[in-house]
Amino acid sequence: MATELASDIARYFDRLWPLLRSLTGAGVRSTHDILSELLPLERMEIPSGTQVFDWTVPQEWVVREAYLVDPQRRRVLDVRTHNLHLLNYSAPFRGTLARGELDAHLHSLPDQPDAIPYRTSYYERRWGFCLSHRDRQALAEGMYEVVIDTDFIDGSMTLSEAVLPGESADEVLFSTYTCHPSMANNELSGPLVTAFLYKALARRPRRLTYRFVFLPETIGSLAYLHLRGEHLRQRMAAGYVVTCIGLDAPFNYKRSRRVPSLANRAAEYCLSAASSHAATVHDFTPASFSSDERQYCSPGFDLPVGVFSRTRVGEYPQYHTSLDNRELVSFDAMAEAVGVLIGVCDVLDANVAPRNLLPFGEPHLAKHGLYPTLGASRERRAVVDATMWLLNLADGTHDLLAIAERSGVDIHLLADRARACREAGLLTYEP
Amino acid sequence: MATELASDIARYFDRLWPLLRSLTGAGVRSTHDILSELLPLERMEIPSGTQVFDWTVPQEWVVREAYLVDPQRRRVLDVRTHNLHLLNYSAPFRGTLARGELDAHLHSLPDQPDAIPYRTSYYERRWGFCLSHRDRQALAEGMYEVVIDTDFIDGSMTLSEAVLPGESADEVLFSTYTCHPSMANNELSGPLVTAFLYKALARRPRRLTYRFVFLPETIGSLAYLHLRGEHLRQRMAAGYVVTCIGLDAPFNYKRSRRVPSLANRAAEYCLSAASSHAATVHDFTPASFSSDERQYCSPGFDLPVGVFSRTRVGEYPQYHTSLDNRELVSFDAMAEAVGVLIGVCDVLDANVAPRNLLPFGEPHLAKHGLYPTLGASRERRAVVDATMWLLNLADGTHDLLAIAERSGVDIHLLADRARACREAGLLTYEP
Amino acid sequence: MATELASDIARYFDRLWPLLRSLTGAGVRSTHDILSELLPLERMEIPSGTQVFDWTVPQEWVVREAYLVDPQRRRVLDVRTHNLHLLNYSAPFRGTLARGELDAHLHSLPDQPDAIPYRTSYYERRWGFCLSHRDRQALAEGMYEVVIDTDFIDGSMTLSEAVLPGESADEVLFSTYTCHPSMANNELSGPLVTAFLYKALARRPRRLTYRFVFLPETIGSLAYLHLRGEHLRQRMAAGYVVTCIGLDAPFNYKRSRRVPSLANRAAEYCLSAASSHAATVHDFTPASFSSDERQYCSPGFDLPVGVFSRTRVGEYPQYHTSLDNRELVSFDAMAEAVGVLIGVCDVLDANVAPRNLLPFGEPHLAKHGLYPTLGASRERRAVVDATMWLLNLADGTHDLLAIAERSGVDIHLLADRARACREAGLLTYEP
Repeated sequence: MATELASDIARYFDRLWPLLRSLTGAGVRSTHDILSELLPLERMEIPSGTQVFDWTVPQEWVVREAYLVDPQRRRVLDVRTHNLHLLNYSAPFRGTLARGELDAHLHSLPDQPDAIPYRTSYYERRWGFCLSHRDRQALAEGMYEVVIDTDFIDGSMTLSEAVLPGESADEVLFSTYTCHPSMANNELSGPLVTAFLYKALARRPRRLTYRFVFLPETIGSLAYLHLRGEHLRQRMAAGYVVTCIGLDAPFNYKRSRRVPSLANRAAEYCLSAASSHAATVHDFTPASFSSDERQYCSPGFDLPVGVFSRTRVGEYPQYHTSLDNRELVSFDAMAEAVGVLIGVCDVLDANVAPRNLLPFGEPHLAKHGLYPTLGASRERRAVVDATMWLLNLADGTHDLLAIAERSGVDIHLLADRARACREAGLLTYEP
Repeated sequence: MATELASDIARYFDRLWPLLRSLTGAGVRSTHDILSELLPLERMEIPSGTQVFDWTVPQEWVVREAYLVDPQRRRVLDVRTHNLHLLNYSAPFRGTLARGELDAHLHSLPDQPDAIPYRTSYYERRWGFCLSHRDRQALAEGMYEVVIDTDFIDGSMTLSEAVLPGESADEVLFSTYTCHPSMANNELSGPLVTAFLYKALARRPRRLTYRFVFLPETIGSLAYLHLRGEHLRQRMAAGYVVTCIGLDAPFNYKRSRRVPSLANRAAEYCLSAASSHAATVHDFTPASFSSDERQYCSPGFDLPVGVFSRTRVGEYPQYHTSLDNRELVSFDAMAEAVGVLIGVCDVLDANVAPRNLLPFGEPHLAKHGLYPTLGASRERRAVVDATMWLLNLADGTHDLLAIAERSGVDIHLLADRARACREAGLLTYEP
Repeated sequence: MATELASDIARYFDRLWPLLRSLTGAGVRSTHDILSELLPLERMEIPSGTQVFDWTVPQEWVVREAYLVDPQRRRVLDVRTHNLHLLNYSAPFRGTLARGELDAHLHSLPDQPDAIPYRTSYYERRWGFCLSHRDRQALAEGMYEVVIDTDFIDGSMTLSEAVLPGESADEVLFSTYTCHPSMANNELSGPLVTAFLYKALARRPRRLTYRFVFLPETIGSLAYLHLRGEHLRQRMAAGYVVTCIGLDAPFNYKRSRRVPSLANRAAEYCLSAASSHAATVHDFTPASFSSDERQYCSPGFDLPVGVFSRTRVGEYPQYHTSLDNRELVSFDAMAEAVGVLIGVCDVLDANVAPRNLLPFGEPHLAKHGLYPTLGASRERRAVVDATMWLLNLADGTHDLLAIAERSGVDIHLLADRARACREAGLLTYEP
């Protein structure tokens, strides 16, 4: 059953799908233009050649046309037919080669004969084509004309961010990447879920400030940290990379390097509380199939950033191929992911660290109007118990998540009782 | 098989049972008078209206007579028949009401039709009667005469304490409450076990000081903390609330809020060592069915106070009804509880933190006469092993409980070896 | 299948076996002379009567002859027949006793009727013989002539050490004891494995310094600590007592008192990584069947010293009897133990604590030639993953063992990547 949200996501998906994205270039800018309809993105253009930590921002990649002409003079492997046919960041080339010579420039997957692989060569100048192994085997002997009319120009790399201010300057980061061409789960699901999360949060009051960033993977997050690292280090309460979140599959949370972290605690609280969402949790790793969390969690920053996905990144067979397409993903699953992330934000927003102002003995609840008089006995008891737990542990060393974890009381009931106790003058949120 | 101790407990039970106890008043004073035969209680009378933290000591409740006259002019629900018939702290009332009007002032338990419930209205002025649901359903239509001749007067609230001094000023607290009328497990078992524990400890040498307090629940412990809180904060090594300890049921220990605490470690050591006593251990909670530990463990005090009971408070069906009576409890079980608490005190008394005065290498035990020469080889080995463990871990950071936990050696064997090593000049108990 | 190493060990075993060892004396010196052929031992002679902590170095024991003449004038229980026949450290005695009088001076094991027990009387002057229970029962009534021509002279106690220097002054200690006469597992296996470990390590480059000590049990390690305790306290990275390591049985590691310790972490890493060696790990205990670790781990020193053995000390039936002989042990097992200890040294040597010099974001591996270009895709990925883990956790708080434990990457692959990263200027081993 497609919800309205799922339909909205699908519409944007269909507009973003055809664009030829890469680390840099026109496809990325068009992607950010379209996403800007959903949230007020501020563009940051980082000039080619800029040094960011150990890396250099690459030149812009310009693609005019790219195809192969086979011995029968048919045009095949045209980038206009499928963006993945052209090796991403391919160098220009024009020439005529025999079938045998051509082979070193072709990329296919013998184990997945119908899939066009996604291959890049960002930091080494090469030219090449990607194709299904079945098509590769069908390429006849003879001479082939190669037309790869690409260019590398001094331009800039495109990043965007949007900030939703809250009462507090403490921030929650959502980071997703926009450098993958014509794949659906990895990666249109991440930017789409993140953009629609913004829309949902923008309509609500917020305690915390929420920051959303869209950038090319690795070099983009490095550039962003170069600009905002010190700010994030001072302000970030929790952060999440959102990626591979479009499958109708169990949620997966990958912990931040730093443990414990508020990012982990809130994510794990939500995923365990939401019993309807089967979910798995994995420890941090900077190894294969990791993404921008490697940069956020590099030892110099060690930011509390985890990863939200459905299935683990890289652990589905269509990963980084043309089979990661519209048929593979579920817009309902993406809509549900927006809901789960809203739940995480709700927990983060609720998570004050209260301090009992009458800590000697328990306050006389009835005197302060904090003893419920309406409702069934079981409900009244639940409210009193929540209040007792809250006041007992409100010693400045427990935030509401810690109280929820120790007591088993839902954090939102605790937050409701905290508001009531604060209004009654029994509690403060100040340190 | 009733022991002498069980018979003694039973005799005092029978004298205490008929008294009409409440937070304040004559029944409480008579209760403390009778308990004073067992231990030298010092009375503290806290004047009505005294402010204790967020609370106010209530007025004394005076009950002259209370009953209902039914349409057949029969006197029913007479407080003289059963103390529970009168709503505890009931306001005075005289008048004639129709059966329907009366209903709002009656309390019964449809699920337990033979039980008179125990109900109180300490902080809201109401009048009422409690009765079995079967009796309630038998009340005919017609006019009823209500006679509740009670009064609230400025007087005082009664607390008592007794202190058994030891070599050390460090204290162990036992706290129990005396505000429950005509119930057996909750709560004559607590005061009885506590009073007889005093008698047993008074006959023995003591390293620690033991403090015993008898008070009304909640407002009583608040008042006591108001008087003694700072002292307890400085002196308390461990404390226990003793309640609901009269059933022939497994022991239950509820941990102090602060973990780890010496209170918990000693209690859990005893309950796990005493394999003949199946026992359960639960984490601290300030929620429903908790008692004065809520006050002792409030965040401003956070004293190391746990709760000893048999079954958890509130988790037996007769709880807070007339069925919690002499038939329900076992005086043998109470006598056994005295023994278990003596065992806890033995462990606390034994629990010195020794420091090895010859910490470089192991001492030459034989030279100091510490190598046993008598007994079976296995026993001699056990003594040597205990001595080795003791001297190895006697580094000032391990108390005997910690050494017992790490080594598996019984704490009393360790204590025996500590005395021998200390006499031989190898060990000190000084920091 | 006996390896060359096993044969070498066997040859030395056969030369050491006949010597009459004890705490002191000629047999010990001959033992150290023979071991000196394997490693350059420096002798330390501690004069009789020297005070070491709470102990006194005993006099040298001189054994000229010791035997019994039975009623049939046959010489029996001659120390020349079996070293164990004479109570170790037996006082001299000459006289004629009836069978019944003799009995108090005989030691046998009713439960193991064919075994001659190993008995000592170091600190109490007694004379005696040890014999199999079967032989004891065969001793006829009648008069027995006792000839025990021993002597106690002021001399010295013999300890030896050898140091293999490495780049770092941080040390690894291997300690084993040489006071047991004519037993094979306990204790020729320990000195033999330790001496051959030296030979193997001497041929290799070393980061750490390795120290090997051979000494009599208890009084020897006490004397050694008296001399070197302060040095060890400052320098010791890890240490191991090597004992009872000659059986064809699972390896056993006994942890140091201090936990965690590098000694434990390296030992447990090796034993769990080496899946071909079933192994058990036990916590520290100073109780029965412990050895010199009691001294190293006494609270005044608390050195990070564990124990390597095969089966636990004392937990094999032939322990401390004549049945602990050449037939019981396996020279292949000892050779394998040398290999396992070399593995532990490899881990200790590898275990630097690296610090990433480019900690902000991840370094651009390809730029530094750290991205592998040869080998199968899976192997290249393993190398990249190891590098990523290394750089991510190289924050100065993780040593390579910690990185290996958290990542699951083999420590030697991490060490290889650390060398490469250090050469590339990305990493330092300096704090």
